[in-house]
Amino acid sequence: MERNEILVGKKPLMSYVLAVITQLSESDGEVVIKARGKTISKAVDIAQIVKNKFAKEAKIGEVKIGTEELEAKEGGKINVSTIEIPVKK
Amino acid sequence: MERNEILVGKKPLMSYVLAVITQLSESDGEVVIKARGKTISKAVDIAQIVKNKFAKEAKIGEVKIGTEELEAKEGGKINVSTIEIPVKK
Repeated sequence: MERNEILVGKKPLMSYVLAVITQLSESDGEVVIKARGKTISKAVDIAQIVKNKFAKEAKIGEVKIGTEELEAKEGGKINVSTIEIPVKK
Repeated sequence: MERNEILVGKKPLMSYVLAVITQLSESDGEVVIKARGKTISKAVDIAQIVKNKFAKEAKIGEVKIGTEELEAKEGGKINVSTIEIPVKK
């Protein structure tokens, strides 16, 4: 199974929705939507729009949440929450 | 099993962390952290802080995401994403 990943950033919501739909139709596996920090809410929106509006047969897999340690710009470390949302055809 | 719920809103992050820890120690069941829309990222932060800093024996259960239809102020309906994060002792 191919494991495509889409990391959610600052692009418009719909460009990620399109990326998920494209990858779902091209692969026969699953797409994992990943996000960190404040983009976590956006990742959930993306998964829900894909499922409710475009790929009604798609299924949301086991959602994982976690913590990543990043280097802060000012030095030192900061903890950032993460989410992974698998979407399966 | 008692099913305590904490709905994440505009209060400071740590007041929800404290609420989760208090309810975890008072009940012997689980606490479910719920959030909608932009507070979803905050709900994940709360769960991770509880687990990493205060209740290291706690376990995150099956995270659920969904969509709720709300009445918009301007009339009509809007869809809002939701998350539910169960935290178990």
